[in-house]
Amino acid sequence: MNGRCVITVGDLGEFGVVARITGRLPQGGAVLLGPGDDAAVVSAPDGRVVVTTDLLIEGRHFRRDWSSGYDIGRKAAAQNLSDVVAMGADPTGIVVGLGLPPEAATDWLDDLTDGFRDECDLVGASVVGGDITRCDLVVIAVTAMGDLGGREPVTRSGARPGDAVAVAGRLGHAAAGLALLHGGRTEPAELVDAHRRPEPPYARGPEAATLGATSMLDVSDGLFQDLGHVAKASRTGIALDPGAFAVHPLLEEAARLLGADPLEWMLSGGDDHALAATFPAGVRLPPAWTVVGQVIDGEGVQVTGRPMGRGGWDHFSK
Amino acid sequence: MNGRCVITVGDLGEFGVVARITGRLPQGGAVLLGPGDDAAVVSAPDGRVVVTTDLLIEGRHFRRDWSSGYDIGRKAAAQNLSDVVAMGADPTGIVVGLGLPPEAATDWLDDLTDGFRDECDLVGASVVGGDITRCDLVVIAVTAMGDLGGREPVTRSGARPGDAVAVAGRLGHAAAGLALLHGGRTEPAELVDAHRRPEPPYARGPEAATLGATSMLDVSDGLFQDLGHVAKASRTGIALDPGAFAVHPLLEEAARLLGADPLEWMLSGGDDHALAATFPAGVRLPPAWTVVGQVIDGEGVQVTGRPMGRGGWDHFSK
Repeated sequence: MNGRCVITVGDLGEFGVVARITGRLPQGGAVLLGPGDDAAVVSAPDGRVVVTTDLLIEGRHFRRDWSSGYDIGRKAAAQNLSDVVAMGADPTGIVVGLGLPPEAATDWLDDLTDGFRDECDLVGASVVGGDITRCDLVVIAVTAMGDLGGREPVTRSGARPGDAVAVAGRLGHAAAGLALLHGGRTEPAELVDAHRRPEPPYARGPEAATLGATSMLDVSDGLFQDLGHVAKASRTGIALDPGAFAVHPLLEEAARLLGADPLEWMLSGGDDHALAATFPAGVRLPPAWTVVGQVIDGEGVQVTGRPMGRGGWDHFSK
Repeated sequence: MNGRCVITVGDLGEFGVVARITGRLPQGGAVLLGPGDDAAVVSAPDGRVVVTTDLLIEGRHFRRDWSSGYDIGRKAAAQNLSDVVAMGADPTGIVVGLGLPPEAATDWLDDLTDGFRDECDLVGASVVGGDITRCDLVVIAVTAMGDLGGREPVTRSGARPGDAVAVAGRLGHAAAGLALLHGGRTEPAELVDAHRRPEPPYARGPEAATLGATSMLDVSDGLFQDLGHVAKASRTGIALDPGAFAVHPLLEEAARLLGADPLEWMLSGGDDHALAATFPAGVRLPPAWTVVGQVIDGEGVQVTGRPMGRGGWDHFSK
């Protein structure tokens, strides 16, 4: 190990690892009982709890040579917290199951832990508990909870013909960053960073609920595919206007470098965790939201004047 | 494949797998919004939610050649539901993250799903959501939630000198079953089954809270080691009376077959998910509880007249 002494997870043992992790995790006001018991206790003042879970596997969802432990922690927390705000709820806490190889360095584990902590901190949530076990691959299971604060949950099934379709947050940046990495490039750095670490527009979720959003979801598999879920659940069609998308100059630059189409990234790229929502016609939206289409009679998602493949991700497609 | 046509997870694809799983999962009364959206919504009438998570890895926590999919599902749910009742709460729902090899048979997945469902059904809980992804190993991440129904959570830190230490549920059966399997035996079948599928004494958790338990936990790493957590958190000692344990005749039989000590299994075997609790002296306990010792001044756990190794499990020990 190039002459340095690297302390590993295996050196600490299970209880040492747990103590090391929990020592780095402050507990926020919603946490009535934090890590260290059979279960945690979290405040749920609304009387309902929003809950979502994601499982991330090394080599499939992240690579330790492409992303730091810190970025992996941020991203794993972000994609779950984003699902909570996409219901219109405020995140309160997450629990984390970790599968770790014994040879993993404790420094790397510290970075991972800090990533979870800092992403939760953005929304006032805490890491309230977890489980660790030995595994040849790094496996990360995150479950996030949230409180609706008296609002009704915004589902995928409430879109109605005539509603405006709007998006908030970055679209296509993570996909462009991944394409750059696959092409052996690390610039533009902002896009590569966007792949490593999404920046979900957290505040926009509860905001949309308050504004009367009729449907909402977190864009995780690509806007085109994810809006397909809204169309199907709502039994409507959706028409997107390609001219309404504001293509970021960095996406234009990356597309030139790689000979790609920036709008393809925006329509089919996942991992940015933008929010897409439908609003009753005439609702005045704050500037963070961009109207990109309309709910229509019919079915499926169409992009005016543009043929589209199926796009998006299927984790078992061949 | 011996001439039969086996349908696999890879054949169905991600959305097909999700539809197949959710089609087998009825939703109970506490579920306000079930699978199919960004997140589920579960009732939390107490205004607090109890939450716990466990990560199970194939080859480490279960073997597909030793346990059926159904038993694996039952066990994965059970160990989390048991943590919820060990706080004195009633389980309401679980979410499940599944890593699946594409060549896994859908019949096996159906069995796994039914196992989750049936174990949850024992306590009136539901599988409210989840995530699936491709993985070379089967990985199962379960997060369980529960409602305290106005009771205070029973932690590990409230034991006081003079309290009685009592246990409910089976002890040592799963450890004996595992030892039998390692020894190439499948009898006594009841013990092998106990390894494959614990039967946590679910109703005893809320009961203990109502009876005024001062501390409680789920015995997952072995009674001796787990009571060590109570002693440490409560800053007390615990003295166990080996003569107070009722050794089941099947444990005696297995011990004879393998040349083992049945009390060793009862004191250091995990996986039965018994409950251990401390109660104020003089509390009259229902017959499901057996008093096996006393909380004392001092520290650590001692077994009167018996030297003890450290026992229990450390997932990173060498």
